Amino acid sequence: MKVFSKTVEIQTSKRLEFVKLDEKVQRVVEESGVGEGFALLRCSHTTGALVCNEDDSTIHRDFAEVFNRLVPEDLPYEHTMEGKVNARAHQLSMLLGTDLWVPIQDGRLQLGTWQSLFFVELFEPRRRKVEVLVLGE
Amino acid sequence: MKVFSKTVEIQTSKRLEFVKLDEKVQRVVEESGVGEGFALLRCSHTTGALVCNEDDSTIHRDFAEVFNRLVPEDLPYEHTMEGKVNARAHQLSMLLGTDLWVPIQDGRLQLGTWQSLFFVELFEPRRRKVEVLVLGE
Amino acid sequence: MKVFSKTVEIQTSKRLEFVKLDEKVQRVVEESGVGEGFALLRCSHTTGALVCNEDDSTIHRDFAEVFNRLVPEDLPYEHTMEGKVNARAHQLSMLLGTDLWVPIQDGRLQLGTWQSLFFVELFEPRRRKVEVLVLGE
Repeated sequence: MKVFSKTVEIQTSKRLEFVKLDEKVQRVVEESGVGEGFALLRCSHTTGALVCNEDDSTIHRDFAEVFNRLVPEDLPYEHTMEGKVNARAHQLSMLLGTDLWVPIQDGRLQLGTWQSLFFVELFEPRRRKVEVLVLGE
Repeated sequence: MKVFSKTVEIQTSKRLEFVKLDEKVQRVVEESGVGEGFALLRCSHTTGALVCNEDDSTIHRDFAEVFNRLVPEDLPYEHTMEGKVNARAHQLSMLLGTDLWVPIQDGRLQLGTWQSLFFVELFEPRRRKVEVLVLGE
Repeated sequence: MKVFSKTVEIQTSKRLEFVKLDEKVQRVVEESGVGEGFALLRCSHTTGALVCNEDDSTIHRDFAEVFNRLVPEDLPYEHTMEGKVNARAHQLSMLLGTDLWVPIQDGRLQLGTWQSLFFVELFEPRRRKVEVLVLGE
């Protein structure tokens, strides 16, 4: 049983961007040499989130509608960051969550047929980090 | 330290159904032979979710009200699947999440007094899979 | 590779309170003797949640606005507990989630610069338990 960890770095380009992580995480699994076990994913940010859903641009565009519904611009938010109102990003990050796990078999991430792993940018274009920890045999 | 994994299969019968998983997951724990450790649960679907809450039908019916509040039918969703509008199921799956973990002691899942594990069907009656991975000694 | 678990106890003082867990969880990591691995956190309650976000009171106050938006008082909730309407707490617990994981390096929890771990009280002042399981070498 071994544990292996690595940081995956990405660059986001806009608010509400879904950045697919499948290939980068699969490469970490291969580097780990783990055949049977699992990968834990976690983003180190408070204005982004990790989700597992379909790689389909209509779903990602629909998410913008839901975002506006759940945390509308006109709520009386108090939080700001150096003059920027990123309160909505903090709130949605808490709702979506910042971690995931995926089983590994035969050295491959075991995702469902329609599932992919995404970092969701909720704030603005930024360099972002996703921690990947692989554990198994 | 060992790792053991098994797929639990269920059949859902309607939208917004809560299918209790406690017994099926406990059986996987017993089959694994693990006494001290944890179980990771994960559904392989993009229109369902896993939650841990009370086994109480009033809470599950209240959830229908919340579902309609969070992702109302009349938002201009773009996503469809072979003519069916399942966009709301995708969005809510991202909000609720698709994975959970539970500690194991003395070969038993350690849930809180009022907690149970549920697969939540967000779309339509379907055969669904929940992956269970048990790790420990 | 070892597994170590301990229950962290807290007392909440009001609804929508964010109780920071960083120090208590770090002490469990130190007690475990694990240098490289991860900690799994889980609350055993159905009217509270665990989140990872910024330790900033404006964000926590904004959360009250979002709470009222997502699960408003005037929805026709059915669930009650001994005459108290805590239906909103159950619903939001499912949305926020009850578990988290954090990597450990050199015996320290590896949180992002702005991240802290919180138990969120969604119901009323109560004694609450957070289970911490540490696994690693």
